[in-house]
Amino acid sequence: MLSGYATFWGASFLLYFAEADPVLFVPVLEPRDNIPGGLIVHEYPWGDLKCSDPFAVLIDAIRVELNKAGVARAQTGMLRSASRSALPIQAAEQIPIPELFWEQLSAVIAKPNPNAETAFLDLYLKKTTEEVKAIRLANRVAGIGIKAFHESLTPEISEVEIAAAIETAIQKQIGQDEIFHARGWAMVQSGPNSADSGKFNRSTGRKLQSGDLVLLELATCVNGYWSDLTRTAPLGELKPQLTELFSIVSEAQQAALAKVRPGVAAGEVDAAARDIIAGLSQYFTHGTGHHVGFRYHDPGFGLVPGQKEKLAAGMIITIEPGAYVPQYGGGVRIEDNVLVTDSGYEILSRDSRTPLA
Amino acid sequence: MLSGYATFWGASFLLYFAEADPVLFVPVLEPRDNIPGGLIVHEYPWGDLKCSDPFAVLIDAIRVELNKAGVARAQTGMLRSASRSALPIQAAEQIPIPELFWEQLSAVIAKPNPNAETAFLDLYLKKTTEEVKAIRLANRVAGIGIKAFHESLTPEISEVEIAAAIETAIQKQIGQDEIFHARGWAMVQSGPNSADSGKFNRSTGRKLQSGDLVLLELATCVNGYWSDLTRTAPLGELKPQLTELFSIVSEAQQAALAKVRPGVAAGEVDAAARDIIAGLSQYFTHGTGHHVGFRYHDPGFGLVPGQKEKLAAGMIITIEPGAYVPQYGGGVRIEDNVLVTDSGYEILSRDSRTPLA
Repeated sequence: MLSGYATFWGASFLLYFAEADPVLFVPVLEPRDNIPGGLIVHEYPWGDLKCSDPFAVLIDAIRVELNKAGVARAQTGMLRSASRSALPIQAAEQIPIPELFWEQLSAVIAKPNPNAETAFLDLYLKKTTEEVKAIRLANRVAGIGIKAFHESLTPEISEVEIAAAIETAIQKQIGQDEIFHARGWAMVQSGPNSADSGKFNRSTGRKLQSGDLVLLELATCVNGYWSDLTRTAPLGELKPQLTELFSIVSEAQQAALAKVRPGVAAGEVDAAARDIIAGLSQYFTHGTGHHVGFRYHDPGFGLVPGQKEKLAAGMIITIEPGAYVPQYGGGVRIEDNVLVTDSGYEILSRDSRTPLA
Repeated sequence: MLSGYATFWGASFLLYFAEADPVLFVPVLEPRDNIPGGLIVHEYPWGDLKCSDPFAVLIDAIRVELNKAGVARAQTGMLRSASRSALPIQAAEQIPIPELFWEQLSAVIAKPNPNAETAFLDLYLKKTTEEVKAIRLANRVAGIGIKAFHESLTPEISEVEIAAAIETAIQKQIGQDEIFHARGWAMVQSGPNSADSGKFNRSTGRKLQSGDLVLLELATCVNGYWSDLTRTAPLGELKPQLTELFSIVSEAQQAALAKVRPGVAAGEVDAAARDIIAGLSQYFTHGTGHHVGFRYHDPGFGLVPGQKEKLAAGMIITIEPGAYVPQYGGGVRIEDNVLVTDSGYEILSRDSRTPLA
């Protein structure tokens, strides 16, 4: 957030000074071609076969930079939790930061800043113009995956085959425009499986049948920025109950969207959706939305019952009411990514909306 | 490792008693169909809209279970680091465990067991028969991806298109046999890009050309168990330098494999590979191998220069020498997953080996 840098290995460290240029420490193994300008970049020997303790070297280097900037005695804060929740681009695992790292780093810092955690968390909430642009791109790429979803919907295709087609369409965007990284996580649930999607999302080997509702939960990461969308589409003729379920959720989403503008309490947006689904309230098991963009789910207040925190211009939220009714044999969720503007809202994922999703 | 359970959301907690049945706490949202037998399963309200602090509820429930088992005053250990490094099946993000969770949990425990961390880490090292079976399956599924890799190798196809084909082949195994989860991370580097693969692995939009070496780094997770393989293949006629490079690395892998048996120091296996690559030693920038199976890279000693720790039957390691020579325009790595047996070794990934990889 402070640098616009998406870490490849997940083992980079940013020193951000109030009055000096920011310093980024990257592993010797880090690719250099997508590091933003305006950063002083140092490497440290993570991945160097000859170095037995790269993190000790890193801490020493941090100490040197703190001294150089004359802030070794100034208040300094750390965001420990980021290392646990931000997925590196090399996404098959997270780099395990040693348990002692934070203690050792604390010893380098004279005056911990008690406000740092809050300040960092605030950065998640309002997106800058550049960040909005990057999240808009993530939504555009997600839309390419959603197109593949709609084109895949045929009887006898399996959920995992659809998921693979969507993820393929997204990954192939690498190299187009300025996209150096694109990955989708497509979770497709069809027919009765869609009734589980208020609890979890996963694709199985089930083959689609005419009359199914098919729900797609889609996480998309492009250049380190995230989109989080859900589409629900019918295959063939739906039972009237399922058509009705779809209409109710669609109407609930419209009602929630209509509330979105600066100054409105998040709980009020949730209530607008929840009122429409009132007759099926027990099947609307989650909140109406959350912040999104730096992660699949950004930290910060949710759009949940009773939440008094207010929306503000620059926030990007999901609006995603749903209802999952096992006895109907299906579930519906419709989820878009929405920028709060000065006067209301803009749906960043509007290009992938269809009359039926 | 103690339960054979692969967590879907990454927010489950296992209490493993010396003398009572193990208790697994899962979020209310967790799928139930792949939880192994022999566990007492309790749910806690992570994901319940009405609960504002599910982790507080979890800690209370853990206290109750400790009391019930009569071990509230006994020595108890925790594996904190696992939560940072084990990727949940829903892999688009990790669940952020609250910073205070471990402190709060510590308050429940009367006598921390100082040996717990070591005991847990030991569990990674020697795989049980059931675990070997699961890792064998992961390697078999990875082999299906590698088949797609070889079939994709044609001029003008891009690295990301090949990667997508491999990941598709792997994901489609869901629903076959007893596979409830399969995901591949295919990183394809061709021609000059393959010379980067000693530092990082990623697919770009580059299109293959005849004369390229094409390197595939492939992480595969099946039902929570991992395979980590690398194949390098030629497209068309190679320059003699690249053919020679391939031969040297292939010979180095054979030399390392020939050393693998119980009682041999890990550094000795590394040295066998490094001796063969001696003429290009500066281009062999990483170790010869690491433990694998519970993660893409298991913790534990590496097969690196000077490592005196010894191999033992039941360990599963990678054997993956490589050399990456920018001025040759290419790099080679050949990586297999190898079980240490009583008398020597077994290559778990042998079915996906080819004369040229």
